[in-house]
Amino acid sequence: MRSLIDILDLTIEEIDELMHVGCDIINNPWKYSEMCRGKKLATCFFEPSTRTRLSFEAAMLELGGSVLGFSEASTSSAAKGESIADTARVMSCYADIIAMRHPKEGAPYVAARNATVPVINGGDGGHCHPTQTLTDLLTIYREKGHFDNITVGFCGDLKFGRTVHSLIHALSRYENVKVILISPEELSIPQYIKQEIAFDYEETTSLEDAMPKLDVLYMTRIQRERFDSLEEYERLKDSYILTTDKLESAKEDMCILHPLPRVNEISVAVDSDPRAKYFEQALNGKYVRMALILKLLEEAKKPGNSALENDDKYITGEHICKNPRCISSCEQELPHTFKKTESGAYRCVYCETKA
Amino acid sequence: MRSLIDILDLTIEEIDELMHVGCDIINNPWKYSEMCRGKKLATCFFEPSTRTRLSFEAAMLELGGSVLGFSEASTSSAAKGESIADTARVMSCYADIIAMRHPKEGAPYVAARNATVPVINGGDGGHCHPTQTLTDLLTIYREKGHFDNITVGFCGDLKFGRTVHSLIHALSRYENVKVILISPEELSIPQYIKQEIAFDYEETTSLEDAMPKLDVLYMTRIQRERFDSLEEYERLKDSYILTTDKLESAKEDMCILHPLPRVNEISVAVDSDPRAKYFEQALNGKYVRMALILKLLEEAKKPGNSALENDDKYITGEHICKNPRCISSCEQELPHTFKKTESGAYRCVYCETKA
Amino acid sequence: MRSLIDILDLTIEEIDELMHVGCDIINNPWKYSEMCRGKKLATCFFEPSTRTRLSFEAAMLELGGSVLGFSEASTSSAAKGESIADTARVMSCYADIIAMRHPKEGAPYVAARNATVPVINGGDGGHCHPTQTLTDLLTIYREKGHFDNITVGFCGDLKFGRTVHSLIHALSRYENVKVILISPEELSIPQYIKQEIAFDYEETTSLEDAMPKLDVLYMTRIQRERFDSLEEYERLKDSYILTTDKLESAKEDMCILHPLPRVNEISVAVDSDPRAKYFEQALNGKYVRMALILKLLEEAKKPGNSALENDDKYITGEHICKNPRCISSCEQELPHTFKKTESGAYRCVYCETKA
Repeated sequence: MRSLIDILDLTIEEIDELMHVGCDIINNPWKYSEMCRGKKLATCFFEPSTRTRLSFEAAMLELGGSVLGFSEASTSSAAKGESIADTARVMSCYADIIAMRHPKEGAPYVAARNATVPVINGGDGGHCHPTQTLTDLLTIYREKGHFDNITVGFCGDLKFGRTVHSLIHALSRYENVKVILISPEELSIPQYIKQEIAFDYEETTSLEDAMPKLDVLYMTRIQRERFDSLEEYERLKDSYILTTDKLESAKEDMCILHPLPRVNEISVAVDSDPRAKYFEQALNGKYVRMALILKLLEEAKKPGNSALENDDKYITGEHICKNPRCISSCEQELPHTFKKTESGAYRCVYCETKA
Repeated sequence: MRSLIDILDLTIEEIDELMHVGCDIINNPWKYSEMCRGKKLATCFFEPSTRTRLSFEAAMLELGGSVLGFSEASTSSAAKGESIADTARVMSCYADIIAMRHPKEGAPYVAARNATVPVINGGDGGHCHPTQTLTDLLTIYREKGHFDNITVGFCGDLKFGRTVHSLIHALSRYENVKVILISPEELSIPQYIKQEIAFDYEETTSLEDAMPKLDVLYMTRIQRERFDSLEEYERLKDSYILTTDKLESAKEDMCILHPLPRVNEISVAVDSDPRAKYFEQALNGKYVRMALILKLLEEAKKPGNSALENDDKYITGEHICKNPRCISSCEQELPHTFKKTESGAYRCVYCETKA
Repeated sequence: MRSLIDILDLTIEEIDELMHVGCDIINNPWKYSEMCRGKKLATCFFEPSTRTRLSFEAAMLELGGSVLGFSEASTSSAAKGESIADTARVMSCYADIIAMRHPKEGAPYVAARNATVPVINGGDGGHCHPTQTLTDLLTIYREKGHFDNITVGFCGDLKFGRTVHSLIHALSRYENVKVILISPEELSIPQYIKQEIAFDYEETTSLEDAMPKLDVLYMTRIQRERFDSLEEYERLKDSYILTTDKLESAKEDMCILHPLPRVNEISVAVDSDPRAKYFEQALNGKYVRMALILKLLEEAKKPGNSALENDDKYITGEHICKNPRCISSCEQELPHTFKKTESGAYRCVYCETKA
């Protein structure tokens, strides 16, 4: 059964296909309005996320399907100690496709291995959030027409920003992409992400310096809690808040993205600037999820195999994953399995932490 | 974009139209059962209200549409500090029409100014609740056939009873309506509401005295917390509880309304009296919401303008709204705008508090 | 109005009919996919139970109907002190059929007496859970083809296990059923249930001794909190955990049931044994609820009478129900009514506690 856990589960060709279907849905919505008649999406949200949940629900409803599920763990059987594996098997009885958000890294992966229907990762802790990345990609694609030959600035909290890491990974497969990383030093991108960046990048602490070079500006929030000292936070925060005057030096066709919700990192006055695309981005999130649901339901018709590939890349029982946020730290009777990566290291199959 | 925030946003003619459509839906439900096929209602409930929410949802489902949303703030992005304006813009990506309940006065007004789809106020703190008033009006209309020439008694807590104030406002536009205000002195109707009553009214502390004169009796709950002394509450409460014996002096065709939920202010024994219409009232609430959804979706097709009318009736920046329950007290970057009323006073556009 | 509160409300013939319809739905789902078009199910869950709620919702959606409701008491009007009777009357305005779960025993019975649509008991405290029993029955029926001439082992907590008591009651109406009760002494089946077992049964503390005789093994969870001493729990628990080696002596066509969620009472390794039927059981739960919804909506078209049968089997006002978990302990103005049973004793009509 084909699921979507990590954006890198999709080939470049598949991402292209999703972009094209997403655009076709936007242009010809009536063609799609009955495509999922009789199909059901289960939204299994073990932690609340209204925006992501409603985007999935709206997507399924606009395909003519219906929706059921839960929006927080307290109203689910997890409160009674049920394993993710069991929940996935039971939800497969009730729905044709599952969208899951969970605070533990790797939980949707465990669900996908046990469900008999496709599972879409709607965010697993700080690990992956592939439909957000698809949303970002569709927005760039609609604004720029391609992913090659663009300069993308990422601004704000690049240390903890899962959506930033994931989009960088996705973009690293395209030609001649340039990335500018704009953040205070305390919140600069982690070393292990930098190592994986396949392309040209530069780092700066100045949004103003970077601005004129950018085709895309991806804003994220800077949270006070991330700073050691309040003084440091107060000193720095204003330089990472996007205001209309900071936009004066930007290209006329630059586009501004933000995964939302924003708090105050983009001034409300920027909303009326034609370069502000973050509300279009929210809309694109619905369309790309429609394309994804269609793709996975189509692939679910094919005979498939959800068993772990049985080769020497996987080892079980030799290492224990030490990441306390990994699903293997709490799911009962879950084997600690590791996969050999291209570099020769072994990484936990659930959370990708090194052995 | 046309929204419904306050019952006075509707003209008498529009209310008449809603009454007629409501009755037509009751008589010919099949005509309406597919009218909203493919349309989606978002229920954005920042505080729980099962009855109101389910009434909206049942209305949309009976029109052939579908529903998504959230039923309390903890499962919404508001928990992450998102503004009402942003929530409204994003919800507009997911739904064709929004029903919003919020504890802050004026929040649905802010939503309506930012959404790109119609917004219906499902209750904003103690401020407005126009669909409850439409529900009350449809019930009176179905029982009496008209709003003119009737005597309506309001009994119970008239000081804090939002539904009472709103229905009085709505009725004040009809001919020869008489109102009898029945309450203990502690809970009598506020002076500013009295000033706005355009018609004949009388005040009394005795439900029994008023009973024989009434065409409609509108009951509300008396809450113990409203009284300074428990003794006073105990002394008074029984006289405002409706029992079968108190009904002996009532007209045979009087009808009894209550916005529900009731606790004990109407004895269960009254339920089987043919004059008890509060459960019909709940049913009417669904029908009038169906009529309203149809009307607003129809008007949304027209080119419109959600910008503030740009005339000298509005001023911004001169006054600050001092109502701590007003949305302007917490929404970020929201201008404090006031509107000049007919009396010459300036009132906050969100919560209607005087400058 | 016909409702389903207790499994014994259904005759043997009606249960047979539900089994047949359930199987027909499994074999010909397309025949049923539009049968409830335009119908609405309300899920009124005063305490959370994801599995039961979603099973009802999936059932209604697969019949082409739609769903609305609430999943915990905090988001319902009960928080404002509304009675179950009023909630049932109001929900009848919004839906064509109600599924209710409530922590108080007898609450769905009170709802059924006041609703104007059918009510299905989705679990009322430790009292009844008839759709779970129908689920168990459909699973046995599909695996064995009949209910007569089978030996059923119940293992685990037989003292508090509501589903066990209910399934025993249901099976006691068939011919030549044999029951083996497998539990530690602390958790053996209550005396009053034993008295009602109409057929051959034996008791044992050894799962291993019972295993070879069983056609059906019904597992339940043993909770630590049920034991007086932790030592006793630790000494006993392993003997009631089902593992692959304990299955070696079982019949080849035995089937293993569990109401789910499980915690650790069945080893995950058992899941791949072809005798493990608990996930099929979850699926059967959806199908039998589809059959039940169809049956009750069909019966709702007939003229009916929800008044208490007016004969001398019922008495009101003589006894007070002393069960603190009974709905009569908290619902306002609810008469304490008792019904004379065949043995001559009077039992509370809500919770069946003896007067």
